[in-house]
Amino acid sequence: MSYTNPKAEIIAIGSEFLHGGRTESNSLFLAEELATCGIEVEWKTLVGDNEHTIALALSTAVRRAKVVIITGGLGSTLDDCTRDAVATVTSRSLRCRPKALQKLKNRYTASGRPLTKAISRQAYIPTGAEILENPVGSAPGFLLEWKRSVVVTLPGVSKEAQAMFESQVVPRLGRYVSSSHVLKQKVLSTFGLTELQIDERLQPILQSFSFIQLSLLASALGVSIVLREWVSRKNVSSIGQVFTEMEKLLPMVRQTIGDNVYGEDNQTMESVVGQQLTSLSLTMALAESCTGGLIGHRLTQVSGSSSYLDRAYVCYSNQAKEDLLGVSRKLLERYGAVSAPVAEAMAVGARKRSHTDIGLSVTGIAGPGGGSVTKPVGLVFIGIDGPHGSHTKKFQFNGDRQDVKTRASQAALNMVRVYLLNQSRP
Amino acid sequence: MSYTNPKAEIIAIGSEFLHGGRTESNSLFLAEELATCGIEVEWKTLVGDNEHTIALALSTAVRRAKVVIITGGLGSTLDDCTRDAVATVTSRSLRCRPKALQKLKNRYTASGRPLTKAISRQAYIPTGAEILENPVGSAPGFLLEWKRSVVVTLPGVSKEAQAMFESQVVPRLGRYVSSSHVLKQKVLSTFGLTELQIDERLQPILQSFSFIQLSLLASALGVSIVLREWVSRKNVSSIGQVFTEMEKLLPMVRQTIGDNVYGEDNQTMESVVGQQLTSLSLTMALAESCTGGLIGHRLTQVSGSSSYLDRAYVCYSNQAKEDLLGVSRKLLERYGAVSAPVAEAMAVGARKRSHTDIGLSVTGIAGPGGGSVTKPVGLVFIGIDGPHGSHTKKFQFNGDRQDVKTRASQAALNMVRVYLLNQSRP
Repeated sequence: MSYTNPKAEIIAIGSEFLHGGRTESNSLFLAEELATCGIEVEWKTLVGDNEHTIALALSTAVRRAKVVIITGGLGSTLDDCTRDAVATVTSRSLRCRPKALQKLKNRYTASGRPLTKAISRQAYIPTGAEILENPVGSAPGFLLEWKRSVVVTLPGVSKEAQAMFESQVVPRLGRYVSSSHVLKQKVLSTFGLTELQIDERLQPILQSFSFIQLSLLASALGVSIVLREWVSRKNVSSIGQVFTEMEKLLPMVRQTIGDNVYGEDNQTMESVVGQQLTSLSLTMALAESCTGGLIGHRLTQVSGSSSYLDRAYVCYSNQAKEDLLGVSRKLLERYGAVSAPVAEAMAVGARKRSHTDIGLSVTGIAGPGGGSVTKPVGLVFIGIDGPHGSHTKKFQFNGDRQDVKTRASQAALNMVRVYLLNQSRP
Repeated sequence: MSYTNPKAEIIAIGSEFLHGGRTESNSLFLAEELATCGIEVEWKTLVGDNEHTIALALSTAVRRAKVVIITGGLGSTLDDCTRDAVATVTSRSLRCRPKALQKLKNRYTASGRPLTKAISRQAYIPTGAEILENPVGSAPGFLLEWKRSVVVTLPGVSKEAQAMFESQVVPRLGRYVSSSHVLKQKVLSTFGLTELQIDERLQPILQSFSFIQLSLLASALGVSIVLREWVSRKNVSSIGQVFTEMEKLLPMVRQTIGDNVYGEDNQTMESVVGQQLTSLSLTMALAESCTGGLIGHRLTQVSGSSSYLDRAYVCYSNQAKEDLLGVSRKLLERYGAVSAPVAEAMAVGARKRSHTDIGLSVTGIAGPGGGSVTKPVGLVFIGIDGPHGSHTKKFQFNGDRQDVKTRASQAALNMVRVYLLNQSRP
C-alpha cells in the first residue's frame, strides 16, 4: 500500500461549533466527495468567527494539506469575517466584483428587499480569486491558489455548500490536484452481532485483501461495517463500477455475516422494511407502548410509507391497551403490561382491528423509573402477528431511556424484516 | 472588555470523524465545562488514528493553547495510538504502571475475561505523566505538562470522558491555569420568531450591556438566544449564582420576547409541556397523521410522561381517522384529510375517545410527494381540543420531509403550551 493520495484539510468556521452546542456536519459530505476525487481529508479544524484565528488556521493548513476547504463566515452579518481573513493572510485586497454585485441586486430586488451595504459585502472577493457562484443562496464562494495549495471558500449553509461543491469545485479541482487513485467505500449495516463477533468473522477473510481497510462503527442501531479501498484510476471503468479487491471481498462478507446484514450504504432499517412491504404488497399496523411513537416516526420518515403503514396505536396506559387493542384486563393483571402474552395480544389486536397484514407490538420499561428486580429497566417484549402466525421475543437493552427506545425500535423493525425475509423465501 | 481568558484546544482522535460519517460530540460538554473553569475553547482539531498526525496536532496545539484536551485512541485495538504519539512527541517513554495494571486485571477477572497483552497496553503511560483514573470504563487517562501547556488525555467514550473530566481533571486544572473570570451562559429557546425579528428587538437593549455576547442559533425547533458573559471571580458568590450584567439583562430579554420564550438552558418543548400538564394534573391524547408518531416519541422521551400521555392515535389512512377518531367520511370527502375541519374533528375525537383533558391533532403534507397547487407540500393543520374549547391553526412549513415533520411537531407542542399558559392565567 505504497500509494499516497493528496491530503485535504477542512476548516469549519462558526463560534456555535466551539460553544453553542452545535456539531459540525458539512465536513461529512465534503470528505465523501473529496474521497471520490481521490483526495483524503486528514485534518478538520473548527474555529470561531474571529479574523485572526481564521488567518492562523489557514496558514497552518496550507503547510500540511494540498487542498484546503473553508466553510462558513461568508454571510452579511458583522461577525462574518472569512473574506477579510483570507485576504489579509494571503496579502490580497478585497475587490468588489460587479457581476457578483449584480446577482445580489437581482436576488434582493426580486424578493422586494433592499440591497444594504452589509449585504453588498458579499460581493467583495480577494483579488486574483476565482468566484464560485451560489446557485441556491446569496453569498458566492471563491477559490485561489496560495503556497502551492488550493484554497476553496464556501458558505456554511449545508445546501449551498453542497450544491456549490458539486457544481463549481469538483470540475475545477483537477487543475490543481492529480490523484492516481480514487476511493471506493462500501458500508454494510448489521443488526444482532457485536463488533467483536463481526471482527472475529471478518479477520480471517481480510488477511488475503491487503488493500482493504476495515472499520466497525457501533451505535444503538447496530454495527456498521465500513470497507474502504483506494483503487487505481486505471482499474475504474468509465461508469465507475469496477472494484478490484472490493469486488471479490463483498460476497464473502455478505456470506459470513448472513442475514445480520440489513442494509447497504445509505439504507436504513425503516427503508428496507418499507421496500419489503411494498414489494410483497403488504400493509402494517403498530402497537407501541414504551417506544411511544418512535417506530411510527421512523417508518414515516420514508416517503411513500402511507401505502403500507396504515396506523399506529400508541398505548401508553393499560386502559388504552384494552380500548384500542382488545388486550384483556385479565391478561394485563395476570402477566403485567410488560410481558410476552401482552406483547402477543397487542400485535394480534393491532393486526385484527386495522385489517392489515402485519401487526407489530412493543412493550417494555424505558426507565429510568418503573423497573423492579423481576422486570428491570431495559426489559422489552416485541410481538409480531402476520399470515404466518405470531411470535414474541424478549430483550434486555442497556443504556438510558433514549437508548432503550432506539434499540427497541430497531429490534422491532428487524423482527419484521426477518419475518418478511422468511416469508418471501421458497 | 480587556480581559483575556486562557485558551484551550480540543484534539479529537478517530478516523470515523474524518470519513465514517460520524460527528464528534465529546467536545461539546468539554467546552462547557472548561468555560465554567474560566477557560475558553478556541480550537478544535479532528484527526485520524495515526501516530504521526496526532503528534503533529499536539505540537501545533501547545504553541497556541494553554490547555490541550485529547480524546480518543486510548483503547486496546491496534489502531489506538494516542499513548504512543504523546510519548514520542514529548520525548518520553511508555512505562507500565503497576496500579493501573492491577485495576485492569481486577476488572477483567471480575467479568471472567482474560487480560490479554493488547488490553495490558492500556496501563502503559508516558513517564512523568499523572494517571487519571477511569471510574466507568477500562482505559485510564493521563495528564502531563509540556512546553508550558497542560496536556490532558481522555478516552473517546463519552460517558468515560465526561466522568473523568468532572472528577479528575477539573480539580487539577487550577494547578496549571489561573483565570480571573468564569463564563456564565444562558440559553433562551424561542418559537415563532425569526432570527431577524429577535435581533431587532434585542439590539436596542444590548447596547447598554457591553460585557454580554449574543448569538442566535436557528434550527427547525426555533431560534435559541445564547447570552454569554465572562464574570470576574470576585463577583461570583460561593454558590456561583451572582451574575453582573446578565442579572439585569435577563428580565429585559424575557419581557421583550414574551411568551415566544418556551424554555431555558436544557429545557425542551416536550419537557416544558410535560411540566405544565403535570402541574395542572391534566392528561392528553394525540391524533397524529403526517408527523407519524413523532409527537408521541418526543413526549415519551421525558421520564414520567406516562402520567399525562395516555395514548396516541397515529392515523395515516383515512380509514384509521374514521375508525379511531370518529372523523366522518363526509367531512373527509368534503374538505380532504388535510384541512382545518378534519384537524378539529381529529382533536375532538382523540380527546373524547380517550377521556383525556386535552386532544392534539396534526394533519398535513410532509412531502416530497402528495402536494398540489391548493394544498402544497408543507401545508399542515394543527387542532387542539380541551376544557376551554377547540381551535385549529394553519401552517406552511419549508424544508424536506424531515423538516416538515419536525416543524409540525414543534408547532403542535407549542400550541399546547400556549393553550395551557392561557388556562393557568387568572
